[in-house]
Amino acid sequence: MPRPSETRFAPRTGESRLDFDPAARPDAGVVFIGRIRSPWGIDDCPKNLRAARETGQGARFEIDAAYRAGLEGIAPGDRLVALYWMAEAPRDLIRQKPRHRDRATGVFALRSPARPNPVALGVVRCVSIDAARGVIEVDAIDAFDGTPLIDIKPFVEAVDTPDSAG
Amino acid sequence: MPRPSETRFAPRTGESRLDFDPAARPDAGVVFIGRIRSPWGIDDCPKNLRAARETGQGARFEIDAAYRAGLEGIAPGDRLVALYWMAEAPRDLIRQKPRHRDRATGVFALRSPARPNPVALGVVRCVSIDAARGVIEVDAIDAFDGTPLIDIKPFVEAVDTPDSAG
Repeated sequence: MPRPSETRFAPRTGESRLDFDPAARPDAGVVFIGRIRSPWGIDDCPKNLRAARETGQGARFEIDAAYRAGLEGIAPGDRLVALYWMAEAPRDLIRQKPRHRDRATGVFALRSPARPNPVALGVVRCVSIDAARGVIEVDAIDAFDGTPLIDIKPFVEAVDTPDSAG
Repeated sequence: MPRPSETRFAPRTGESRLDFDPAARPDAGVVFIGRIRSPWGIDDCPKNLRAARETGQGARFEIDAAYRAGLEGIAPGDRLVALYWMAEAPRDLIRQKPRHRDRATGVFALRSPARPNPVALGVVRCVSIDAARGVIEVDAIDAFDGTPLIDIKPFVEAVDTPDSAG
């Protein structure tokens, strides 16, 4: 069976791959705490969170029953850092050439979902929360419907923005 | 053998645990792409990135040989989002009472390293980089020496800060 990067993500000039699939040799395991429900599929998903906000379309986090006690203390208006798992992206494209760039670049200098650990990061706003049912409405998200969630954290301005030097 | 949360992280009033250990039933795997080298151990680690910056002490990311091609395009002065794996924290404390709070709160409303997926997030500045050797010097970090790294991303102001409403 071809690896995902050999099909949907066909290599472009200058791209290179790891000689192994990171998914095949994990150092630790992640659990899915719930799923993102969004209006987006592969053909219309906004390419980043700014573009997602500009659509005016909200999204919903659905948290599995086991993890709902962890939502206590989240309130409407809170700014949240969501971490989600881009499960469909190949993990072995270590240098990539995005369509909007003229040459290939290392994956750690890109926000591509295709990376050794496909953890995406989105800073969103909590519109409403029903902790007992495990539902958080958020202002926007740049992920397909059904994308697994792995963490939610409070956004803290003083630690989540860089220092102002330079 | 006791789980970690039964020893170093003794339960406090109002805390509660999952009835399983997330580490024991992974949905997906992460790879360690390298390690953080820092001046910090369990007794003196700054509790967040702001406190780490205030010490004036820098830190270093050491990226494993297999992943170094992914560093191409990172330059001194760049702001980076680092994701790291707080491997020593228990993963089952779903409600926690931090010492500085008067009651227990859901883990997803806290920045505690003890969480179902112990992925910590730090926005740092690249001071210098030697991509061939896999070394990035950064301005500060709030993690023990030896903490595994799982991802590095460019920080993008427009997507990594919340909208200004509310």
